[in-house]
Amino acid sequence: MFFHINTDSEKPIYIQIFDAIKEMIETNMLPAHSKLPSTREMGRLLGVSRSTVITAFECLESSGFIYTLNGKGTFVSPKKIKLNNEWNIDWKEKFNQYAYDTEDLDLMKNGMPYKKGMISFKSIAPDENLFDIDEIKRSFMDLMGVEGNKILNYGYAKGYRPLINFIMEYMKKIGAALENKSVIITNGFTEGFDLVLDSLTSAGDKVLCENPTHNTAIKQMRLHGLDIHGVNMDENGMDVSALESELLKCQFKLAYLIPSYHNPTGISISYDRRKELYDVFKQHNVPIVEDGFSEELQHHSSHIAPMVAVSGKENSVIYIGSFSKILFPGMRIGWIFGDEVLIDMLQSVKRAKNIHTSFLDQGILYHYMQSGSYEKYIKKIRNIYGDKCQYTIKLIKKYLPWEYISGEGGLYVFIKLKNIDSHKLLENCYKRGVLFMPGDVFYVENPAKNALRLSFSRNSYEELEKGIKIIGEECMKF
Amino acid sequence: MFFHINTDSEKPIYIQIFDAIKEMIETNMLPAHSKLPSTREMGRLLGVSRSTVITAFECLESSGFIYTLNGKGTFVSPKKIKLNNEWNIDWKEKFNQYAYDTEDLDLMKNGMPYKKGMISFKSIAPDENLFDIDEIKRSFMDLMGVEGNKILNYGYAKGYRPLINFIMEYMKKIGAALENKSVIITNGFTEGFDLVLDSLTSAGDKVLCENPTHNTAIKQMRLHGLDIHGVNMDENGMDVSALESELLKCQFKLAYLIPSYHNPTGISISYDRRKELYDVFKQHNVPIVEDGFSEELQHHSSHIAPMVAVSGKENSVIYIGSFSKILFPGMRIGWIFGDEVLIDMLQSVKRAKNIHTSFLDQGILYHYMQSGSYEKYIKKIRNIYGDKCQYTIKLIKKYLPWEYISGEGGLYVFIKLKNIDSHKLLENCYKRGVLFMPGDVFYVENPAKNALRLSFSRNSYEELEKGIKIIGEECMKF
Repeated sequence: MFFHINTDSEKPIYIQIFDAIKEMIETNMLPAHSKLPSTREMGRLLGVSRSTVITAFECLESSGFIYTLNGKGTFVSPKKIKLNNEWNIDWKEKFNQYAYDTEDLDLMKNGMPYKKGMISFKSIAPDENLFDIDEIKRSFMDLMGVEGNKILNYGYAKGYRPLINFIMEYMKKIGAALENKSVIITNGFTEGFDLVLDSLTSAGDKVLCENPTHNTAIKQMRLHGLDIHGVNMDENGMDVSALESELLKCQFKLAYLIPSYHNPTGISISYDRRKELYDVFKQHNVPIVEDGFSEELQHHSSHIAPMVAVSGKENSVIYIGSFSKILFPGMRIGWIFGDEVLIDMLQSVKRAKNIHTSFLDQGILYHYMQSGSYEKYIKKIRNIYGDKCQYTIKLIKKYLPWEYISGEGGLYVFIKLKNIDSHKLLENCYKRGVLFMPGDVFYVENPAKNALRLSFSRNSYEELEKGIKIIGEECMKF
Repeated sequence: MFFHINTDSEKPIYIQIFDAIKEMIETNMLPAHSKLPSTREMGRLLGVSRSTVITAFECLESSGFIYTLNGKGTFVSPKKIKLNNEWNIDWKEKFNQYAYDTEDLDLMKNGMPYKKGMISFKSIAPDENLFDIDEIKRSFMDLMGVEGNKILNYGYAKGYRPLINFIMEYMKKIGAALENKSVIITNGFTEGFDLVLDSLTSAGDKVLCENPTHNTAIKQMRLHGLDIHGVNMDENGMDVSALESELLKCQFKLAYLIPSYHNPTGISISYDRRKELYDVFKQHNVPIVEDGFSEELQHHSSHIAPMVAVSGKENSVIYIGSFSKILFPGMRIGWIFGDEVLIDMLQSVKRAKNIHTSFLDQGILYHYMQSGSYEKYIKKIRNIYGDKCQYTIKLIKKYLPWEYISGEGGLYVFIKLKNIDSHKLLENCYKRGVLFMPGDVFYVENPAKNALRLSFSRNSYEELEKGIKIIGEECMKF
């Protein structure tokens, strides 16, 4: 620190020192908590008496610019805000990188927004008009009759015991072995996957997934700073030899898979392929996180055992389930099924983040599920969505220059168009009131520029035809 | 890499090489993906022909011990698990430090567990018998009548619009200025505070709080790796000069405060003290996170404006509210009120973690609140808890060797005993079926070893007397 003292000036020297240091503090040349030279040293540096420097320091201290710690020295105070000034925090300066990353990866903020009157093929929410409200009301009243006040008080991080038991039975029905396994209830799939990543991964870890895959899962893996490797799919799911050669490259922390009704392609992997994939993961000792988000939703074919059933009594698959894609997403109920040691740890993580998932919702869902309403509902919607899916595919074949179509279950189909950039296509369709999901958001590498996902769940047959016809007309202009 | 080749052995040399390398891989001397010397170099090292080494490598490769990347060399494969062996993952080896920290700080796992028949002064849950179930049923039916199916489908990260509007009005009633402010709905206080810490802090950041303070908040700050500085309290709340001297030491990222019905002490800070504290934070430019978790719960005195009201139109206070301590904690509904730039960012963070909070619960709560049921309920419970609080204090004065008692609102009182270690006392009381919260868990530094928190909310008058008498008897034995 050095500055010029003007001995000819009429301004007293201690005030010159005061002004000079004050300015350096105000212009951030001296940052908060930085140490000043001692009065003795500064006197020597400036060629003035130590007592003059002491007087200047006393003024600086009483004005709040510096502070003294006994025996340690004198330091720059953090900047003071005058009480009569307005305290206006620039929050944008305060956010950390994580927050900015969530915003960058937030499709709700960065995508083209839905506007009233548009035909949207974007969201994969179920059609709420199919919900059986009378059964929900009955479930609520049943719950209130049985548990009344108790269900509204604090519960446990693991979840509502009757619902947990119900889900254990459900897992058994779809083929899972229950020995040494357990369940924790989460706020939907998204929280479930977040808890798993929070507990098992660290930034820089390598993870595997299908390429393409569920865009929210990609976002979550990116936000955890993971090094994501995508394995290509053929028309029957993840390619076994592509997986093997990827697994030879390095050690992976875990793999994220959607074996049934894959998002976005709608592909369900056959039992034989599942077994093959499982054996490859087993040989390379890479645990599998299985996303069973719409396990129940296949329209016509018979159910295929999930990976967690393929694993038998082994403890290598973490199954994350959710009813959100079919039933009441507004409730946000999902679950994690896996090794009981894992589930026990996840309870502590869940408790640290939000104590537990709504017991009221868990109770209503339990009463709904165990009454048999669910089976009836599933039967109904399978037919409705199945017919709609067939109709959508028919329209695509009629109106679009398609190269590839997949989607044998679920609420959407995945299409690759002939030499058409889906982002440019979306821009043009948007002007005509039609919205869809461009396919590249689902890729972790080598994005298909000509792909799109069309969700049909909430559109009427008329809207489906009108919307797909518009997309077709816009395709013609390329 | 070097090992001995026995040229006199009957074992062919290529098999000797195979066995030696296989053993080094199996004993982890050669870790996965480490590079082997070239065949030429290894031949030279071992004094054997290159073609012998090539034969050995071919065997190693076909047995899966090594793999070759063209042009790059030969590498050790990750360890293979034989398909007929059981794949048994040791999950304890897989958890990261964060997961272990949540477990270490998990009082539910580490504290003494409640057993049936015990008298517990531990939990600060409200008494569920006071919940007005008929009003909840009516709110649910009203909601179903108005929103029906829609409320069960996906909603928005920010929350259910009518509830947000209601809470904005509520914030206005308690004195907050609404200009440029906004609200996001969270899964209770805990998630609200987690979102704030996730977005604004990084490991190593310095934060301030009262000492003692809410143990869950301490846990959350620790889990975010923050450097927590506690400021001592006197009988009227945080000490102003202690705060000033702490703020001179370094720059703080934020301060966490519970100005009303402080947990664990029950102290509410007077308006004048709030103003003084606010001005000190303002001068030092340290934003305040205000925990208003039971703002409404004071028993007899008149309401004091929260810090967010003291801040006027300034944007420096992040207010986290919750009805959990009074109303339906099982629902997990809380909110964050603050600068709209901040709330907008928190939407992206919330969406990345769990999409949104249950719209069903938000809808029920809204219909409950806006019908006026809440005011009636609050009036009722204020009297009930107020009387119980007075009775509890009377019993403490009668039975316990107390040095200090505080708690003018809330569901608990905080006590310091004369020269009694509260952990030893708890051990003895636990044997006699009485449970309470030892005071040291609420401290970030200099824990009071003689303190305890007694919650009275869920105990009958008889249980209160029986339990406190037992604590008193155990105190006598010290």
